Amino acid sequence: MASLAHPIRLGITMGDPAGIGPEIVVKALSQPRSNGGAAAIVVGDLELLRRTSERLGATLEWQAVHLLEGGPPPPGVIPVVDHSNSPGNLKMGEVSTEAGQASLDYIGSAVALAQEGQIDAVVTAPICKASIHMAGSPHTGHTEMLASLTQAKSVAMLLVLGSWRILHLSTHVSLSAAVQLVDHDRIMWVTRLGHQALVKMGITQPRIAIAGLNPHAGEGGLMGDEDEEIIAPAVAALKNEGIGAVGPLPADTVFARARTGQFDLVVAMYHDQGHAALKTAAFEPDDSGGWKSVGGVNVTLGLPIVRTSVDHGVAFDIAGKGVARADSLLDAMDVATKMCGVRTV
Amino acid sequence: MASLAHPIRLGITMGDPAGIGPEIVVKALSQPRSNGGAAAIVVGDLELLRRTSERLGATLEWQAVHLLEGGPPPPGVIPVVDHSNSPGNLKMGEVSTEAGQASLDYIGSAVALAQEGQIDAVVTAPICKASIHMAGSPHTGHTEMLASLTQAKSVAMLLVLGSWRILHLSTHVSLSAAVQLVDHDRIMWVTRLGHQALVKMGITQPRIAIAGLNPHAGEGGLMGDEDEEIIAPAVAALKNEGIGAVGPLPADTVFARARTGQFDLVVAMYHDQGHAALKTAAFEPDDSGGWKSVGGVNVTLGLPIVRTSVDHGVAFDIAGKGVARADSLLDAMDVATKMCGVRTV
Repeated sequence: MASLAHPIRLGITMGDPAGIGPEIVVKALSQPRSNGGAAAIVVGDLELLRRTSERLGATLEWQAVHLLEGGPPPPGVIPVVDHSNSPGNLKMGEVSTEAGQASLDYIGSAVALAQEGQIDAVVTAPICKASIHMAGSPHTGHTEMLASLTQAKSVAMLLVLGSWRILHLSTHVSLSAAVQLVDHDRIMWVTRLGHQALVKMGITQPRIAIAGLNPHAGEGGLMGDEDEEIIAPAVAALKNEGIGAVGPLPADTVFARARTGQFDLVVAMYHDQGHAALKTAAFEPDDSGGWKSVGGVNVTLGLPIVRTSVDHGVAFDIAGKGVARADSLLDAMDVATKMCGVRTV
Repeated sequence: MASLAHPIRLGITMGDPAGIGPEIVVKALSQPRSNGGAAAIVVGDLELLRRTSERLGATLEWQAVHLLEGGPPPPGVIPVVDHSNSPGNLKMGEVSTEAGQASLDYIGSAVALAQEGQIDAVVTAPICKASIHMAGSPHTGHTEMLASLTQAKSVAMLLVLGSWRILHLSTHVSLSAAVQLVDHDRIMWVTRLGHQALVKMGITQPRIAIAGLNPHAGEGGLMGDEDEEIIAPAVAALKNEGIGAVGPLPADTVFARARTGQFDLVVAMYHDQGHAALKTAAFEPDDSGGWKSVGGVNVTLGLPIVRTSVDHGVAFDIAGKGVARADSLLDAMDVATKMCGVRTV
């Protein structure tokens, strides 16, 4: 392995200025976590980041940059691609055209930087769907916007929690439509995409479980034909390509098997199959007798750039209150760093 | 509340004699757990239970009974409705007609005892589908058999893990068929059934979440119509009846919300929606850095009798080895006791 010419550079979008984005960015960058030696560049509003830092008592320094040249900045100094577009009269926790437009500017800028090779990955803080609509965006969220900006034909959503990874054959379509999307070519394409991503992350022989569509993976055709007639032949074809796929495996136990280390990746057949399993298990008892979410990271595969995201929204109800947690953003930075892999230059 | 004329009597079927049933029955009844004062009657084979006790070093005494008259037996003495039908040459861990027939005999006998009012609930140890088929049973499992024996028109499967309860609108049908079964009358019937069961367990105002069918519960019709057009009106009708139902709620978070105490029951729209959520979360890190299943209990609602079951199979691979765990059976006994409720006599 050759050494890197530069550390991996993560471009972090600040997200909606009226949400918890600025706060979690400040908190994440105040952590001593190294992110595998990755450098962070924030795409946002310098003035708002400074104000947020002061409010939180963070000792970070921020420095506006235009092009990311030269070596890394001194420790504690965070380079900011400054859009100077945070409204002066910004009201935290409120929907607005200005905040929506600012959110869109950061994303457009980060994508351009990634495409120019000035950053290696885009890590996104949350945006507000209503605000970007007011600002004129036709997209329902980050993923659709990123696909459009990079002219990607098709993308797939990967959820990551530690070494537990779930890739989805489809996402935001009705369950009836999702059943229709279970076809040979799509299973092949999505699984290959997952295989490639894991190889890039250093898992040389990924163990991939393909979930069944029907209860008990159809139980030999007793409960639906798709598992036998569509999924099983696709798994066989994947094996022929040298991909370590097994399945279809019953969906009620495959996710637990992956969580306990038997697989590196599960390909879920539809949105809620993977999401319900991971998000339910991601709550664990905490020390005070309550419950805590152990987070999760949202990754978009199929783009020409590396993109990870927090797995939560703008949380307008707690925006500006100083109580937001940066765990998911830190995890998203970790996953992005891993996905950049080991590059030779 | 009047006091009970007798303790609640649980009829425990021994399950397939070649599986782990006899072992978990012996282990469960060796525990000091009180099961809320319930008395246990085993429906099985006295000689096999004695041999299993000896092998495991249990200090239980067993006593054949025909009718369950008089007071409870002395502590440490377990009444057995003895079928004397365990094959003399029984091979542990093997499929056979004899073991299948024995399994069927225990179930038939337990149902008759429950219908005669001699026991208050049936708690079933696991049976082997292949063995009961060899013995001529047309049923695919306990639930179908119990529905047939009691002439129940329709039943619904409830999974229970502590105070976390998930009831299923449908179970062993294809996902396409399950989508078609999402209709007004079925949602009403299943939710009422769950409401009644919880009231009987002492929860006077059950908080019931109805899961959505589509991602994000359809997100206002963007991802499927069923949530708005079928589920929401059913929830409104349930509220009109005084049932504390809310929904449809997105399936990727509703199960975590119930697990953390926000709801007493979730009505899942199909088998894997509820099963994947619960079975994935039921694995937790153990003290040795590995994982352990925290079990779960399977309950059949809609029968004229109370029935609970372990949530695992005959485990032929470990049958007779002394390593099976009785946790799920103990939990099934607890849940059955609670479901018998407080009766006035």
